[in-house]
Amino acid sequence: MAILEKINAPEDLKDLSVKELNDLAYEIRQQIIDVTSQNGGHVSPNLGIVELSIALHRVFNTPKDKILFDVSHQCYTHKLLTGRNKEKFRKLRQTGGISGFCNRSESEHDAFGAGHAGTAASAALGLAVARDRNGGDENVIAVLGDAALTNGITFEAFNNIASSTKRMIVVLNDNEMSIAKNVGAIAKYLNDVITNPACNRLYSDINAFLKKNPIGAMVAKTTEKAAINAKNFIVPSSLFEYFGLTYLGPIDGHDIAMLEKYLNFCKNATRPVLLHILTKKGKGLEVAMRNPEKFHGASPYNVITGESTSNSDKTIPNYQDAMGKALLRYAKNDEKIVGITAAMASGTGLSFIKGELPKQFFDVGIAEEHAAVFAAGMACEGFKPVVAIYSTFMQRAYDCAMHDVCLQRLPVTFCLDRAGLSPNDGATHHGLFDLSFLRPLPNAVIMQPSNEDELSDMLYTSIESGRPCFIRYPRGKAEGVPIKDAPVKLEIGKAKQISESDGAICIWALGNMLSTAKTVSAILNEKLGIRVGIVDARFVKPLDTELLRKTAGENRLIVTLEDHAASGGFGSAVSEFFASEKITTPLEVVGWPDVFIPHGTDVATLRQQFGLSDAQIALRIAKVFSNLDDK
Amino acid sequence: MAILEKINAPEDLKDLSVKELNDLAYEIRQQIIDVTSQNGGHVSPNLGIVELSIALHRVFNTPKDKILFDVSHQCYTHKLLTGRNKEKFRKLRQTGGISGFCNRSESEHDAFGAGHAGTAASAALGLAVARDRNGGDENVIAVLGDAALTNGITFEAFNNIASSTKRMIVVLNDNEMSIAKNVGAIAKYLNDVITNPACNRLYSDINAFLKKNPIGAMVAKTTEKAAINAKNFIVPSSLFEYFGLTYLGPIDGHDIAMLEKYLNFCKNATRPVLLHILTKKGKGLEVAMRNPEKFHGASPYNVITGESTSNSDKTIPNYQDAMGKALLRYAKNDEKIVGITAAMASGTGLSFIKGELPKQFFDVGIAEEHAAVFAAGMACEGFKPVVAIYSTFMQRAYDCAMHDVCLQRLPVTFCLDRAGLSPNDGATHHGLFDLSFLRPLPNAVIMQPSNEDELSDMLYTSIESGRPCFIRYPRGKAEGVPIKDAPVKLEIGKAKQISESDGAICIWALGNMLSTAKTVSAILNEKLGIRVGIVDARFVKPLDTELLRKTAGENRLIVTLEDHAASGGFGSAVSEFFASEKITTPLEVVGWPDVFIPHGTDVATLRQQFGLSDAQIALRIAKVFSNLDDK
Repeated sequence: MAILEKINAPEDLKDLSVKELNDLAYEIRQQIIDVTSQNGGHVSPNLGIVELSIALHRVFNTPKDKILFDVSHQCYTHKLLTGRNKEKFRKLRQTGGISGFCNRSESEHDAFGAGHAGTAASAALGLAVARDRNGGDENVIAVLGDAALTNGITFEAFNNIASSTKRMIVVLNDNEMSIAKNVGAIAKYLNDVITNPACNRLYSDINAFLKKNPIGAMVAKTTEKAAINAKNFIVPSSLFEYFGLTYLGPIDGHDIAMLEKYLNFCKNATRPVLLHILTKKGKGLEVAMRNPEKFHGASPYNVITGESTSNSDKTIPNYQDAMGKALLRYAKNDEKIVGITAAMASGTGLSFIKGELPKQFFDVGIAEEHAAVFAAGMACEGFKPVVAIYSTFMQRAYDCAMHDVCLQRLPVTFCLDRAGLSPNDGATHHGLFDLSFLRPLPNAVIMQPSNEDELSDMLYTSIESGRPCFIRYPRGKAEGVPIKDAPVKLEIGKAKQISESDGAICIWALGNMLSTAKTVSAILNEKLGIRVGIVDARFVKPLDTELLRKTAGENRLIVTLEDHAASGGFGSAVSEFFASEKITTPLEVVGWPDVFIPHGTDVATLRQQFGLSDAQIALRIAKVFSNLDDK
Repeated sequence: MAILEKINAPEDLKDLSVKELNDLAYEIRQQIIDVTSQNGGHVSPNLGIVELSIALHRVFNTPKDKILFDVSHQCYTHKLLTGRNKEKFRKLRQTGGISGFCNRSESEHDAFGAGHAGTAASAALGLAVARDRNGGDENVIAVLGDAALTNGITFEAFNNIASSTKRMIVVLNDNEMSIAKNVGAIAKYLNDVITNPACNRLYSDINAFLKKNPIGAMVAKTTEKAAINAKNFIVPSSLFEYFGLTYLGPIDGHDIAMLEKYLNFCKNATRPVLLHILTKKGKGLEVAMRNPEKFHGASPYNVITGESTSNSDKTIPNYQDAMGKALLRYAKNDEKIVGITAAMASGTGLSFIKGELPKQFFDVGIAEEHAAVFAAGMACEGFKPVVAIYSTFMQRAYDCAMHDVCLQRLPVTFCLDRAGLSPNDGATHHGLFDLSFLRPLPNAVIMQPSNEDELSDMLYTSIESGRPCFIRYPRGKAEGVPIKDAPVKLEIGKAKQISESDGAICIWALGNMLSTAKTVSAILNEKLGIRVGIVDARFVKPLDTELLRKTAGENRLIVTLEDHAASGGFGSAVSEFFASEKITTPLEVVGWPDVFIPHGTDVATLRQQFGLSDAQIALRIAKVFSNLDDK
């Protein structure tokens, strides 16, 4: 790390030779592999963008110039070059360490934060227009993966760029992948461009132009015009030119010198430009090149074999696999059941149905809104779509869930994966708001299973209910309980009493909080000598009002536990019910507080940090309970 | 109405001559003008699409074939031709009458409901893929306005069409308008197409081809191929072909015979096609042609002068004008204040800033997500963006409000217009969920003014707060109170006590419900002889917990009133607070029930229908109060 360790700020790059830059790229790759193999992280996207990041910081001057990374999971090199090297980078995605995404509060070099795809062009346009109005001369560069082109927001932004500013740079980092292999018309188009000899001719011609001219500010407008004219002559048109973006490329995204040339050209352009670069996802790590989907976002791994090195119990399935396998089982017996995902087949467990029943599987790209409306359309014709999407990305499809699914009472099942924490990813990826935004929707059924067998039952119940259903469950390990051979149709809106109380406290636990409830119950039993009642709530909507009324009547305190924001969630629903029934039994709502929860080493660390460990919850309940005694 | 009155179903169209069809179009226009001039409605879009609707129902057979209208506010002719003529149409958009939008529960001819733009292509693709899987042979036709091309979902769908089905028809109804004049690159592109002689040549050529061939099933694949080849030769490419859609057009959208020819051609196509037709918004009504924006969605009007005939008190401003004028006032003194809208400058009152300070105004098209992220980008650079958007459309930008604005704590103000009911539009347009989905977002400030002066103060407070703020207010008349010369900065999170109680009941009223609270208070005073306390809640987040605690301590019943779903709204926030503080004062939450509220004649009718008239609320409170006495 002879070169990297001397880079404290982007200025330190400016005097390096081409050879040194290439050596630096090598060192950075080693550093990324070293840290991600221990901490996990977005391995492949970051290995693909090393040279581009170096070239960007050579040509532009952050923080004055603004570089916006779409999704921003590919920001590691950018972070290494902007003062977040060494021990800071060592603790990447861990408690006390730097975030795996750009974050305005972490560094002035992070022009805009992100974690969801498709926002970079919109935000960059905001910065560019602000620059124009402020009379500034800084450059604004949006770096998009090709996957951003499957997302509608990018096109909404593209539609507005040319009419709003004359100076904005879009770098399209094309690796033919989003998280999974890209699908659809745009992916096909980009492939056509790459394989079209006319485009290569264009590239050589512009390159020839540039070679004859000094780099940088000297690349005059005449050159630009000539190049554009030449291009229009050689390549009749490009998709991007319909949007008023001057198209340049495709060029090799691993050639630092060439990238610098083109970026300098872009810097001096007097109209919005799109530079199309080609990169290899996972470049420099053999196992990642071979398996780009697995290494998109990976847990700690062996750098040689690629195998996961996390020593968790492999006999306990995670919720993702349980869902995927259950769906496959049901879909085998009913061809009307289809699985739909927005570019996350493996993350959600839809890879099972994708592999065995490809005709019953749809990956629509990073297009959550389309996924929901498309599902609604299929549901009109007798299909039973299961849309698997992360809770945080469901925020994108909220209007479609309301306007297209619930309002028309169509039988679409939404599986909200990663409801709760995504600890290493942090605030952009936690799924802590879904209950709040879904609860008010009429016709919606909302549930959360307490183990993988209940998940199988809930999935079955949802698919067969003929109603809009939402099932939320967390990332990672389930409970390790056996899954019944045949699923059971649950009664919608019925909770399950797990243990009876002695009249003091009853805990209503939602989903994965049932295991917490059991631990808390044991602690309270030991501490206070009481037998705590426990209910597996199962349904947030409709609530089991009968059992709520009964337990409220029989106990001195009702506690709700949920892996969700306390504001507007399950406990909130219970508090509404108590108010409507004028039930005066004290209610303690335990959920995540009203702050954005950052990233952290693991779920346990974050729960501890926010007062939500099992022991802390038990202490809190004991305090509330003893205060009741005081009254 | 000699012809129209004989049309009971689309079959009745099939034997009409071209002359009769044109006469029918005339009759339909008269009928639309007649009914909308009395009931209000989407005048211009419907007048523009009469011939297309006739041609669609001549060529296709609903309900077997599926016609999906984007937004579906242009469905009046479709409704008149599918058994919803005469007295049904007379009560358009009124209580007991038909909806102004497509509605699956209203007719089997309405293949998919809509009210928000951009969903038709996605839903149609769902229907088309379902058809393919089911082995059906029905046609699926998505009818989009050009405004749908400013919306991201349309592009998400376009990206997926060609890879998913070989048979789907998109009709692009191009009238160069969405609600307002369209903006951006796509609008420019469509204009280029229309004015490009090569395209006209294409049109004549295909027309010549078609003339030589019998219409309908007889238009053989060879013809199609020849036409496509010819086109590729004449027109190098089109934007839509990058998406794998075969492009046809542009043709005159008011020529029924030509439309039928082209639609028959599309019907037999063996790949997805896009037919580009040109129409005149408001055709047949002089005043609407002259003022397409006003007549996009109009209140009752005089058909000769175009003047509004609603006899409401013109001296009381509506909230929209009050907001627009206040914003203009503030923006004049601070060039960092900018107004951003998603194609609804006049609906939101942003027309004032648009007219006087065009450089501080942005209309981004029907692109709510981009609007929010673009605003976040500008806010990074010291601007103070005010994004004015309808509450129901804010659902589209939910993720952006969370991920781009609140998470980064950027100073963007969202003005959520039409929070509450849009009575004639109905379920797709009511704004009853915004508090539920915004409440859990950390850093958000959420408020609602009780009159136009408080709105001015809240707008000022928000802009100067440096925080993400959301101000919601209803459609229509404000209270008629004078607006102070200089706005006052409100203390964030402070409610305003309007009247003291005698210890029995205190009503916390949110926003426009303050006037209801006053009436209810008067009724209760007369009925029960009690002096009801009233609080103007002002802030939903943060709550005025101090005053809540105080009033809960001083009264036997707290009532919350809000123009929002009871689930997850303001009263829900209060119930959460009561639970957290173990406050046992009974709480009655009054809000909209957990059903989709349909359209109706006016707000008063709908409130009465759902038990929320002033008198009904007073009765309900009296009952709850007397039940307390029983305990």
